[in-house]
Amino acid sequence: MSVSRRGFMAGATVAASAAALASCANAGDAQKVDAASDAETRLTAAIVDFDGPHQAGIETPVQANLNLISFNLKEDADRTTVTRLLRLWTEDARSLCAGKVPLGSLEPEMVTAPANLTITCGIGPRVFEVADLVDKQPDWLQPLPEFSLDQLDEKWGQSDFVLQICSDDPIMASHAMRHMVRAAMDYAETGWLQQGFLNADGAIEKGKTPRNLFGQVDGTVNPHNAEEYKEQVWIDQGADFLIGGTSMVVRRINMNLDTWEMLDRASREESIGRDLEKGAPLSGGEEFDQPDFSATDKYGLPLIDKNSHMARATAPEDAPEQKIKRRPYNYDVQPDPALGQLSNAGLVFITFQKDPVKQYVPIQQRLDESDRLNIWITHIGSAVYWVPPGVSVDGDGDHYWAESLFADDA
Amino acid sequence: MSVSRRGFMAGATVAASAAALASCANAGDAQKVDAASDAETRLTAAIVDFDGPHQAGIETPVQANLNLISFNLKEDADRTTVTRLLRLWTEDARSLCAGKVPLGSLEPEMVTAPANLTITCGIGPRVFEVADLVDKQPDWLQPLPEFSLDQLDEKWGQSDFVLQICSDDPIMASHAMRHMVRAAMDYAETGWLQQGFLNADGAIEKGKTPRNLFGQVDGTVNPHNAEEYKEQVWIDQGADFLIGGTSMVVRRINMNLDTWEMLDRASREESIGRDLEKGAPLSGGEEFDQPDFSATDKYGLPLIDKNSHMARATAPEDAPEQKIKRRPYNYDVQPDPALGQLSNAGLVFITFQKDPVKQYVPIQQRLDESDRLNIWITHIGSAVYWVPPGVSVDGDGDHYWAESLFADDA
Repeated sequence: MSVSRRGFMAGATVAASAAALASCANAGDAQKVDAASDAETRLTAAIVDFDGPHQAGIETPVQANLNLISFNLKEDADRTTVTRLLRLWTEDARSLCAGKVPLGSLEPEMVTAPANLTITCGIGPRVFEVADLVDKQPDWLQPLPEFSLDQLDEKWGQSDFVLQICSDDPIMASHAMRHMVRAAMDYAETGWLQQGFLNADGAIEKGKTPRNLFGQVDGTVNPHNAEEYKEQVWIDQGADFLIGGTSMVVRRINMNLDTWEMLDRASREESIGRDLEKGAPLSGGEEFDQPDFSATDKYGLPLIDKNSHMARATAPEDAPEQKIKRRPYNYDVQPDPALGQLSNAGLVFITFQKDPVKQYVPIQQRLDESDRLNIWITHIGSAVYWVPPGVSVDGDGDHYWAESLFADDA
Repeated sequence: MSVSRRGFMAGATVAASAAALASCANAGDAQKVDAASDAETRLTAAIVDFDGPHQAGIETPVQANLNLISFNLKEDADRTTVTRLLRLWTEDARSLCAGKVPLGSLEPEMVTAPANLTITCGIGPRVFEVADLVDKQPDWLQPLPEFSLDQLDEKWGQSDFVLQICSDDPIMASHAMRHMVRAAMDYAETGWLQQGFLNADGAIEKGKTPRNLFGQVDGTVNPHNAEEYKEQVWIDQGADFLIGGTSMVVRRINMNLDTWEMLDRASREESIGRDLEKGAPLSGGEEFDQPDFSATDKYGLPLIDKNSHMARATAPEDAPEQKIKRRPYNYDVQPDPALGQLSNAGLVFITFQKDPVKQYVPIQQRLDESDRLNIWITHIGSAVYWVPPGVSVDGDGDHYWAESLFADDA
C-alpha cells in the first residue's frame, strides 16, 4: 500500500485514524441481516461484507437508494492511472462499507450508518485500450446491438467506469458517492448520475420482490440461491482474472405512466402476464409458481398472452441460459409540461449475467420484437461493464479491484 | 362532495372502493409514533394525522424523502378552478396520508406503506389575482427582497402552488406525487421539482437533529414545543382564513462541497459556530445549550466567531421574533465537470414562520451581510407561499384547503 494520498486535504489535520481494515471475510456476499428492533441499530449495524469471492451489491438484497455514477478517465491516463484509481477506490469502499472512516476523510459523522451500503465497480471497454490490454478484453465487453425500438440518448451512454452505490440510508448513499468521486479526482471525471429508489429497506418486507412504478412486481424470476447464481451470474470459465466476476448491463428505460395509467387493471395485467397484486402468473397460483402458457379460459383463449412481457422475457426451453439477475431501481424526475409530460419516470435497469451477448441480448431481442409493454416503455440509455471479482485482505496485504489484470507485475 | 372526477380514467373499472374517509381528528399534528419492531409495521402503520388545526408536514418530525413540487394554474383558470383543484387535492391527500386508496385510483398496491407520509400545500401570490381576491392577499405574500449575494435562477422561482410531499418510504413519496399531479392535470401544470433527502427515518435516531452535507447539525434552534410553534409559526392574528396557517419560504441553497472540504475541521467549526460532532456551541456544552457569545479562550479571543453562521443567524435580544422553523432537505444531483464541479449539492431550505418579512428576512439580511459560510454557499432559488390552516371532516362534510377564503359562498 504505497500509493500516496492525493493532496486534496492539503493542510488538513487527518483526524481519522487509519484503523486496521475489516478482517478478511469468508462469508462471500452473505448479508449480515440486522434483526435489531430499533432504527438506530437497523441502520448503524447493517453491514454487508465487502470482501469475498464476488463483489457485493449483486446478490445482496436490494437497498432503498441507488446512486449509479459513471466516470471517464482523464486524457493522459495509462495503466498506472487505472491501477492507482482502482486501488484507492477499493481501499475507500472497503472502509465505507464497514462503517469506518476512510483514510484522509474529515467527515466521520457521515459514516456512522452504513445501512447495508454496497459499492460495486464496473469497468468499460475503453479501459482495456488505455491500459494497453486490448488482447485481454472479453468478447462480450462491447456495445449492445441496436434494438429496433431503442431511442438511445448518448448522455446515458457508455463510460469507462461505473460505481453502483446502494444503501438503505440516503445520506450514506450520498456521502459514499461524494467520497468515491473525491478519491477519483486526479484520475477520472464524473459522467452521468442515475439515481433510483425502491421501498425503504429495499422492500417493505425484506425478501419480497420490489415493485416498479407501473405497480409491477419486478424481478420474480431472478436467481434465488447459490446454484442459480453460479449458473447465471458468476463467470467460471476463461482467463483467471475473470473468474468470480460478472458483467453489468445498464439500460435506462423510460416508462410512460401517463398513457399506462389510462389502462384498466385487466389490461395492465394482460400486458405484463402477471397479476398486479401478487405478481402471480395469469395462469394462476402464487408469485413464484411456474407459468402455464398452455392454460386457457372457458373460451379457449390463452390465460397468458404470448406477447405479454412475461411470456416474451421467459427463456425458451431449448435456451435455458437466457436468464439474468435483474436489479432495477425506479427513477422519477421532473416532468416537462412543454413535452406534454405529467411524469418523467422509469427504471435504471441494471442486470448481471456471465455473458450479456448470450444471456441479455436474446431476451431483449425477443422483447424488442414483440412485447405488449413496448407501447409504454422506451429504452433511452445503454452501457455494458465488466465487473471484476471480489477482493480480500490476505497475507500479501489488501487486494484491489481487477488487480490480477491491471497490476504492473501481473 | 359533489365535484365530479375528471375523466382521466375513462373506460377504466374503478376498482378502488370509496371507503369512508378517515374520521375527524382531534389530535392536531401529533404523529402516531410507530414503535413496532419490524420494518413492515414501521412503514405500513406509520400514519401522520392529516386532519387537524394545522397542516401536517410542518411540526411533523422530518421524514427521509422529499418531493417538493410546484404547480402553475392553466391560462383560463379562475376562482372555480382554484376551488376544484384544492378540493380534489385535499380529498386525495387525506386518503393517501391515511394509507387509503384515493377515489379513482387503480393503484392500491402503491398505497400500502404511508411511512409517515405528509402532503402540505402552499399557495403563491398569483392565485389571489386569479381568484379575484387581491384585497385579501397577506402583505407578506410577495417576493423576498433581493439579497446582495443572491444568484437566483428563475427556474427555481415562484409558482402558483407548491406541494411538500414527505415520506420515510421513497416509493410512497413518488406515488403520492404522481397521484397529486394527476389530480391537478385539468387545472395546473407542474413546474420545478426539488427532491431531497435526510437519513432513513428522517434521522438515525428519531428526535435527533438531522445533518446537511457539510456535516453540520442543522435545525438545533427550531421550535420544539407547542408554545414555541404558537409564538413562531402558527398565525393567530388577522383575517379568519389565515388563523392556524403559516407561511413557507423555499430557498434553494447550493453548497460547494469541493471548496468546503478543503478546510480542516477546526475551520469548518469556526465558520459554523458549533462543533461538527454534536452541534454544540463552540462556547461549550451540548447541542441544545445556549451559546455564550462572550466566552473567550486563553488568549482572550472569542470562542464563537461573531461572523459565524450561528452567531449571525441568532435572533438579537431586542428582536426575539426573528425565529423560524427550518425544515431543510439535502439535495445531491449530477455534477458538471465542464464547470469544474466534483459535486452539485446543497439544501432545499424550507422554512415556516408567521410572517416571512418580519421573521425570515431580517435573519437572511444579517447572513447576507456577513456570514463566514457565504464563501461556500449560494442562494439560487426563492419562493414564498401562504400555507392555509389544517382541514377537518365535520358535520358539514369534509373541508378542503383554504375553503374559507376561496369557496364561492365564502
